[in-house]
Parts: sequence; structure tokens; C-alpha cells
Amino acid sequence: MRAEIICIGTELLLGDIVNTNASFIAKSLAGIGIDHYFQTTVGDNPARLTDTITNGLNRSDIVITTGGLGPTVDDITTEIIAKVVSKKLVLEKDVLKDISDLFRKMNKKIPKDTLRQALIPEGAKWLKNPYGTAPGLIVEYNSKIIIALPGPPREMQPMMEKYVIPYLKYRGQITEDRGQIIKTRSIKLVGLAEASVNAKVKDLLNLSGAVTVGIYAKQGEVELKIMAKAQDEIIAVAGIKKVEKIIRKKLKPYIYGVDKETLADNVVAALIKRKKTIAVAESCTGGLISSFITNVPGSSKVFMEGIISYSNESKVKDLGVKAESLKKYGAVSSRAAREMASGIRKKADVDIGIGVTGIAGPTGATKEKQIGLVFIALSIGKKIICRQFNFLGSRMEIKHQTAQAALDMVRCELS
Amino acid sequence: MRAEIICIGTELLLGDIVNTNASFIAKSLAGIGIDHYFQTTVGDNPARLTDTITNGLNRSDIVITTGGLGPTVDDITTEIIAKVVSKKLVLEKDVLKDISDLFRKMNKKIPKDTLRQALIPEGAKWLKNPYGTAPGLIVEYNSKIIIALPGPPREMQPMMEKYVIPYLKYRGQITEDRGQIIKTRSIKLVGLAEASVNAKVKDLLNLSGAVTVGIYAKQGEVELKIMAKAQDEIIAVAGIKKVEKIIRKKLKPYIYGVDKETLADNVVAALIKRKKTIAVAESCTGGLISSFITNVPGSSKVFMEGIISYSNESKVKDLGVKAESLKKYGAVSSRAAREMASGIRKKADVDIGIGVTGIAGPTGATKEKQIGLVFIALSIGKKIICRQFNFLGSRMEIKHQTAQAALDMVRCELS
Repeated sequence: MRAEIICIGTELLLGDIVNTNASFIAKSLAGIGIDHYFQTTVGDNPARLTDTITNGLNRSDIVITTGGLGPTVDDITTEIIAKVVSKKLVLEKDVLKDISDLFRKMNKKIPKDTLRQALIPEGAKWLKNPYGTAPGLIVEYNSKIIIALPGPPREMQPMMEKYVIPYLKYRGQITEDRGQIIKTRSIKLVGLAEASVNAKVKDLLNLSGAVTVGIYAKQGEVELKIMAKAQDEIIAVAGIKKVEKIIRKKLKPYIYGVDKETLADNVVAALIKRKKTIAVAESCTGGLISSFITNVPGSSKVFMEGIISYSNESKVKDLGVKAESLKKYGAVSSRAAREMASGIRKKADVDIGIGVTGIAGPTGATKEKQIGLVFIALSIGKKIICRQFNFLGSRMEIKHQTAQAALDMVRCELS
Repeated sequence: MRAEIICIGTELLLGDIVNTNASFIAKSLAGIGIDHYFQTTVGDNPARLTDTITNGLNRSDIVITTGGLGPTVDDITTEIIAKVVSKKLVLEKDVLKDISDLFRKMNKKIPKDTLRQALIPEGAKWLKNPYGTAPGLIVEYNSKIIIALPGPPREMQPMMEKYVIPYLKYRGQITEDRGQIIKTRSIKLVGLAEASVNAKVKDLLNLSGAVTVGIYAKQGEVELKIMAKAQDEIIAVAGIKKVEKIIRKKLKPYIYGVDKETLADNVVAALIKRKKTIAVAESCTGGLISSFITNVPGSSKVFMEGIISYSNESKVKDLGVKAESLKKYGAVSSRAAREMASGIRKKADVDIGIGVTGIAGPTGATKEKQIGLVFIALSIGKKIICRQFNFLGSRMEIKHQTAQAALDMVRCELS
């Protein structure tokens, strides 16, 4: 079975809201192995909506719409669906009762327009909406299915989970063409550019068949997403494992986690495992490294202190950076980063000290030192390591990339 | 002129990412009065992408695509566009030079695949990408236009603003068929819940006609979006001004900015204006308040120092919090917050000290002190103010709401 998603609403075309319904429904369909190849967004316009639904029924087995089920005259989805499947609208008494009950609960009178929402195409199944007045609809038409859901995510999502997914699962079982399970797993990498990752796993990216791999560049990291289609979960998982093994072999040093894990999750887990404590001295990142680390539940076991030292005075006074170092090499220098790292380590009495200094822009550049120039130092064991970076992007992007790079240096030292 | 948007990428069909590109481009088009009636999302599949672009060219004057311009074999947009307009791909030397310069800046070798990105359809205009290697493309084809933009929002957005909008404006002036201008303006509020804002401007939210108002709840703040449709910009702006005046009259104390301004922008501007300096002592927010402030260009003029003091020892040693206060009232207490605020103010020798302590969860709660309990103190002038909050949500949501509330307290004191 093949589905497609049609999101209806002029506010989507105006860009006033981001379309989260499409991704929610897409993920739900992928989870039960129903392919879908198209998502269309269209306004509340009778002619264009008719065309879009008709076109969807021509190329797909299931058309899922969201939006346009409200009480106002703008809301035309039910009407258009009835027209497309050549059915008249009939009053559904149980829906009317639901709507009346809802208004009684809120101690309010039913606005007259709301009664329109109890009209459904003859023969259609309707889906209860506990969070609003618009019922969902399932219309079977020849061998095709139209499913209409309300637009507000808090009404649409439970309806999708509670009624639509079980219905589609059930339908999938009684047709010949059984849906396949789709499982995905993201392998998350840091410290290597997208093109270099690409070069190392080129063959995998060309896979076609039950298991495929996609590559995605994110801020300061790269994701390889393995996707497996199979008759059941065991086969899909086995397919993913096989490919993951190849990826791990080729890219091991750069892999920090899978799926929703963050780089900070990895670092905090490694610190806890190795019983190491950490403290951070930040200049250009302005607290972002500490904030990333402290986003992780349980980070208080290993994160002892952070100092954001924007001024030279604070670097000298709070971190013990030498005034002569700042004078000779500047605040944005390898020397300053090294002294910040060892200074915070000593001050906070921890195992690892991070020192970061750089130019996040948009001002602060000189002839010798450009925006994006960053020095990151680690004081760990008996050594101090310092790396120089030249990042590109806006102030916030440079902060973000710097924080990722600093965490990655800690990760590499701990592994 | 009529446009449509085609977003390309299998990750969109899998629901792994939310499509923010569609709404960004939609908003940009609305802003210059270009109608668009369809948004389509399609995967990196040659046949379906060819159909979708061809279909778009049949029903619209302008087709804007995002995605599929990367260096990997998955990325087929340029190739398909060349095929649709019957042009061959040619090597564009200036793009090649841009890519080479970019890698030189980062001190990295150019991966071989990246060179693919310098191939463009013969005769196409290309758009500079300062944040990545994929150039944008403008292809004029008979009387139609195809515009191809990269998928990552941080690459696509500046390209849209800097090149595509001016190009479309220029094209719009020479056609007969001018659309209506749509202008929007967001009034941003903090310190009042959505339902309370709703109650105060209920009449405005029911407006129908040329000027309408929508209400949107964001994390730790609320947005009122005014939208005006008119034949020209002057009338639209006048319509917005009239409604904005009413909103400002009803909600003045809660309004901190408009459109893209952040609360931190407001606070930093107020500090600069009043020549006040600030320093922050954070516990549960773990660096987030400092990071918000230092996101603002020029914040180094007013932000002197941040200390993230997770442990009791650091609170005593670095901030001068009294050990007996911690013992008697606990680290999460009004007393601790007050002593943190005055401690950091004294230590950093600034005009305003912020002290924040709380329980961000998911662990750390006790019978008396629940997750979400937060104390925020300001030491300013001759006084110390402290407020208690009980936030709801995940660890990161509590951090976020706390940071917003702390910045709002500074805003209120400065205004």
C-alpha cells in the first residue's frame, strides 16, 4: 500500500505556521511500513483541493488529509471529499451528541456553525475527537481510502495513534499487498566533514534494496541514517546491524552515538564511567559548552564548575592566565587557551580543564585574526593539548561549532 | 506571478525532520506579494522528482526547490532540473573557485565528490553560498523560472533573502500581474500566559478582513502576529500600525520586542543604553543565561562574567555564599539565590548580579522541593529582589523557562 499526505490550510501557504503534521504522519506511516512518496500542502480553495485529492487517489492507495474540518465556512475538506467520492453529506447523530456533550462540559452554548461538523459523507466512518469538535473521517472509495484528520496537532496526533494506525494495520493484513516494516537507525559522527564521510562509505550510500543508507550534515556533525524495509522487525533489525557493522569498521573513531544521543550525552557518560570530573573556562562560547554538558541529566556528578570569562581582567583574576601572555599573544591565542584550561583545572580541582577562546564575530576581527578563529585547549593527565580551528558562519553558528569541537576533543581523550 | 515550493529529501518523507524550509519560503513570498498555491515534498527519486518539477512548471510561473544539491550521489536536483529544461551540465569555474577558497579557509583538502557541485545547467545563473559548498541556481526556461536552493536552512535562508527576493522583486515589477502585498509583524511578550494574553486582546483575535491577529505560545513567551493584506506596502503598514497601537496600549508592560528580536537582545540593548554591567551566577541553568546574553553581538560591552556553580563548595568559594545558609535553607532556596546574586555582583564588580538556583530534574526532587522549583535573585542598586517559580516540563524546558524569567526580571528592573 502506498499513501500520500495532503495538508490543507492557507496559514501553511502564508508560512505562519510550520507544518509539523506532515512529519508526524510520515513517521507514523514509516513505523508501520507504509510507503509514501508525496506530501502536498494546499489552501482552502475548492478547485485546487479537488484536483489535489483526485490526483492523490490516482497515484496512491491511501490519501490522508489534515485541516479544513473546522466549523467555519473556510473549512471545506469534508464537502470536497464528498464531492470527489460522489456521496451526499448526511447528519451523523452520534457526532452531534459528542459536540453537544463537549459544549455542555464547558458550560457553553453551541455556536450554530459548529453543527456543520456533524455532517459527514454518507457511509463514511467517523473518528472521535476528544480534544475538539471536528470528527475525523475514513472514506473507502473503490479500492482506495481517504482519511481526513483535523489540523490542530493536539487533535490530530491522538486520532492518528488511536484510530488510524490500528485501522491501517488491520487493512494491511487483509490485503494481498502486506505492508513492510520500516526501521531506521542513525549513526552520529563528529570531527569529519560530510564529504569525507561520504568518501569513506560511498558504496553504502549507493545501496538499493531492502537496506539503504542516507547521509545528512548537521551543525558540527554528520548523521548516517540506515533504513531497512522488511516483512518483520527481526529481519529489518538484522539488516540494519549488518550495515552498521560496516560503518563502524570504516568510521569508528568518529562515531559518538546513535539516534537521539547527543555528543554531550556521550561525554558525560564517559566521564561518569571513568570517574573523571570536568570544569570549563569559556570565552567566545559564552556558557554554551557548560549548558550543553548540564543539559544531560546526572551531569552534576562530573561537571564541577564553569567560568565565562569575557574580559582580560577576569581571565587573569579568576583563571590565573598571565597578564604577560595576554599582552604578548593576545586573548585569542593558543597560549591563552592553554592557560585558561590549566587555570580552571587547578581552580576547580578537577581531572579535566577546558579552555576556549576565539572570535565569534560579527566584530572583533583583526588583520591577523579572522572571525571564526578559535583555540580550544584541554588540560588532562600530565598534558595540555591545544587545537586551532577556523569556523565559518554566524556568531551563533561559530559558538555552536566551537562547543561541539570542544566536547569532541574530550570524547577523543576519554576513548 | 504564481509560485510553488518543492522540498526534496527522503528524510522529509520519513518524518525525521520537520520541514521549516516550506514555511520560511512561503513567508518570504507572501512578504513580496507573490501568491503560491502548492507545496510539495518528494524524495530523491529521479522519476518522481522529474514529474513533480514538470507538473509545477505547468501550473505555476516560478518553481522553488530546496534540497538535493549536496555533493553525494543521492543529490540529484541539479541533474533533474537540467534534464527538465533540456540543458547539459557545464563546469562553472567561479563556483569551483568558491569551493576551493572555502576549503582553503578551513585548511582542508577538497574531497573529490565536492567538485560535482560546480556543475550547473548551461546558461543558468548561480547564487553564492557563503555557508556551504552548494551554489543556488536560477534557471529561466521559456517564460518560467526554476530556483534551486540548498536544503540546510542556514544555507538556504540567507540565499533566499540576499538573492532570490531581490531577483523576484525585480521580475515582479516587469510583469503586469502584480499580487497583493502581505505584511506581518510579531509583537513579542513575556511574563504573561497565553490564556491571559488571549483574554486581554480577544476582540483583536476575532478580526476578519484586511488586518488579522493570531496568537502563538512559544517557550517562555507569547507572540501576537498581525497580518495585513493590501494593494501596496503603505496601506498594509498603516493597517498594522493601527492594530499594534491597540495591542501596546493593552499589554505594554509585557512587550519586549518585535519580529526577530530576542529577550536577550532587549536586555543587552537596555544595559548598553543605561551604561550598566552585568554578571551571572548560575546553578540549575548551567550556563544558559550567559549563553543567551552572549548570543547578542556587542554583549561583551556589558556582560563581564558568568560562573556556573553546580557544587556547594563552588558556591561558597567562588561566590561567597555562606556555608551556614546552605546548611540551614539548602542550595535551592531564596537565601542561596540572594547570596549568589550579591556574591557575583561583588566579585565581578558590576552593576547587576543575577543568582539562579533550582531543580531542573529529572532527579534531585525532595518532598518539600519539587522539580521545577526555581529561585531567581537580582542584586541591583541598593536592593536584592528574589522571585520563586514553579516551572513545568523537561530538564531542558525548565532551564529555558528559568533563563527567560531571569532575563525578564532584568528587563523589568531596567524599564
